[in-house]
Amino acid sequence: MKIAIVYHSGYGHTAEQAKAVAKGAESVAGGIVKLIAVGDNETPWDELDSADAIIFGSPTYMGNVSAPFKKFMDESSKVWMARKWVDKISAGFTNSASQSGDKLNTLQGLAVFAAQHGMIWVGLDLMPGNNNSKGSVEDLNRLGSFLGAMAQSNADQGPDNGPIASDLKTAEHLGKRVATLTARFK
Amino acid sequence: MKIAIVYHSGYGHTAEQAKAVAKGAESVAGGIVKLIAVGDNETPWDELDSADAIIFGSPTYMGNVSAPFKKFMDESSKVWMARKWVDKISAGFTNSASQSGDKLNTLQGLAVFAAQHGMIWVGLDLMPGNNNSKGSVEDLNRLGSFLGAMAQSNADQGPDNGPIASDLKTAEHLGKRVATLTARFK
Amino acid sequence: MKIAIVYHSGYGHTAEQAKAVAKGAESVAGGIVKLIAVGDNETPWDELDSADAIIFGSPTYMGNVSAPFKKFMDESSKVWMARKWVDKISAGFTNSASQSGDKLNTLQGLAVFAAQHGMIWVGLDLMPGNNNSKGSVEDLNRLGSFLGAMAQSNADQGPDNGPIASDLKTAEHLGKRVATLTARFK
Amino acid sequence: MKIAIVYHSGYGHTAEQAKAVAKGAESVAGGIVKLIAVGDNETPWDELDSADAIIFGSPTYMGNVSAPFKKFMDESSKVWMARKWVDKISAGFTNSASQSGDKLNTLQGLAVFAAQHGMIWVGLDLMPGNNNSKGSVEDLNRLGSFLGAMAQSNADQGPDNGPIASDLKTAEHLGKRVATLTARFK
Repeated sequence: MKIAIVYHSGYGHTAEQAKAVAKGAESVAGGIVKLIAVGDNETPWDELDSADAIIFGSPTYMGNVSAPFKKFMDESSKVWMARKWVDKISAGFTNSASQSGDKLNTLQGLAVFAAQHGMIWVGLDLMPGNNNSKGSVEDLNRLGSFLGAMAQSNADQGPDNGPIASDLKTAEHLGKRVATLTARFK
Repeated sequence: MKIAIVYHSGYGHTAEQAKAVAKGAESVAGGIVKLIAVGDNETPWDELDSADAIIFGSPTYMGNVSAPFKKFMDESSKVWMARKWVDKISAGFTNSASQSGDKLNTLQGLAVFAAQHGMIWVGLDLMPGNNNSKGSVEDLNRLGSFLGAMAQSNADQGPDNGPIASDLKTAEHLGKRVATLTARFK
Repeated sequence: MKIAIVYHSGYGHTAEQAKAVAKGAESVAGGIVKLIAVGDNETPWDELDSADAIIFGSPTYMGNVSAPFKKFMDESSKVWMARKWVDKISAGFTNSASQSGDKLNTLQGLAVFAAQHGMIWVGLDLMPGNNNSKGSVEDLNRLGSFLGAMAQSNADQGPDNGPIASDLKTAEHLGKRVATLTARFK
Repeated sequence: MKIAIVYHSGYGHTAEQAKAVAKGAESVAGGIVKLIAVGDNETPWDELDSADAIIFGSPTYMGNVSAPFKKFMDESSKVWMARKWVDKISAGFTNSASQSGDKLNTLQGLAVFAAQHGMIWVGLDLMPGNNNSKGSVEDLNRLGSFLGAMAQSNADQGPDNGPIASDLKTAEHLGKRVATLTARFK
């Protein structure tokens, strides 16, 4: 079983989130996990075509996926034509400085993109955290997201300080969930 | 394998689409298919809780799911709390009079709803039809939808005249696809 | 100048948010503000038809507007046919227990709905709060929303304890902004 | 009154749509219209900062704005920080080969983007065309869009053959509407 995590990170926060997703996926027996950063480098399309699952990650910039990640999405139109990703498992994650920060729009865009490729979409299966008087930002799924994993990192701090632990654990949970379901589906 | 199709239909067009989805699901060996109309009747929650896949269908009214279907969605919050639908396969379809008619907003809402329930989302795996000089409204997926199945029915015609054959075949394809993937996943 | 605020509230939290929007709108000279709750009562369509601006508010239930609010939206199809709301100013707000809670999907649905009516959409003009190391939940626009005003209320607390002050101030800001722009537009 | 139309076009179809929007805007007395293509060239930010209205246009690629247009959006974060576009009128248009083709997702992304900038969003005020037994693809708003103007161009034909006349007239209508409302607002 091979799981590819393809992401863009502008300042390193989304890269931390991607590593957490990878950690979760690797915790499932029998999984080979490939972390693939897009943007400056040539995309290794073969790695994606041979994966059983592809997890997409992008920062939310101006309410949507980043331009470098969109470039990857546009370039995937050749793969789309060839229907190479049909029936693969897919999922998504995103980070931004704002709590909500229109991150849902990014996840919706990723889900629509995966659907164009004929992929199967897996979201989080977590109840929302930090939504009651006993909750805190330490809760798993503290941002209350379901279509994919959200993380929040302060605008004035580097990737050493964000995303915070709960967001990374939420990302890890997504990775584990995708790997578990991919194993079952395969 | 049990597949439930839960839908609302105001004038009968979406009911025709639901029947086509059911026909597609039934064409796969080993599938028991339940067609469940919501709105006036009590929802048979047990039928949904015991299904392996639930396909959601609603007309698009004012750019979103219909109020009766939303009532069903809101009432499912008890099931949501109990996490009864986690890991079930899900999918969606919608009909409206306009060609585009903001139907994507309805499908996005259904995908977000399924994600809240921890379900796995299956879209269409079809290339778009009627998008080139040789295409026509007779093409499969003639509206170019991917997150789910779209249909269009003229505002001045009853369910005898719409959705047209290509839209019903597209709905049938979705039902068959969901049943095939559910069998594989199970 | 007349500004109508039409909303549904299931447990009272969104009603508090609606009152804050009204307070902001009333702070602008020359404005008559009408707070209209939908759900149990007959909708006073004349009040809406004669308004210069209509602000829509709904809790986010299962990732979308509530069923009673959707019922109001569906019933507005008669007004839509008659094009009575074309060129009116519009805006939206929503409350839920989760921080993000798919509230953006609700606001997107409201914006699409207003566009169907030919209305002009006004969002927030605030920078995001609580998005840096010196920020807190006390910040204006602490949830980082732009298409409309978001509020969060704990699931285990009544409307006396939520939405919190910063969310109510954000709602008030939206009301003031809509009234100011409506005056200018009129 | 100055109206800027900023767009990206990969194969020329969206450029035709942009020209139609410009034609509509120019038909309103007192309007100076600037057509600005982004992608290869440096964006003339001053032209945008001094405009009273900005209309955004992008092809829909893989269900979202094109990467070159997203690059423009990301680069506008400096303008966003400086709040230079607050209270400007905004609108959007998009073209793709499919009839629906997930174009709504592109328009939703543009509306969220404009809201982040504190802009006021103007959609179409047209009833849907081609949605009844007497309708045809020659109708204005034949795709049934409201948040902005949609166009469809066959995948195997160049910009000489698409978008078709009705889609260009719909785009022209949007340009005229934006100019009319901008004049009134100013």
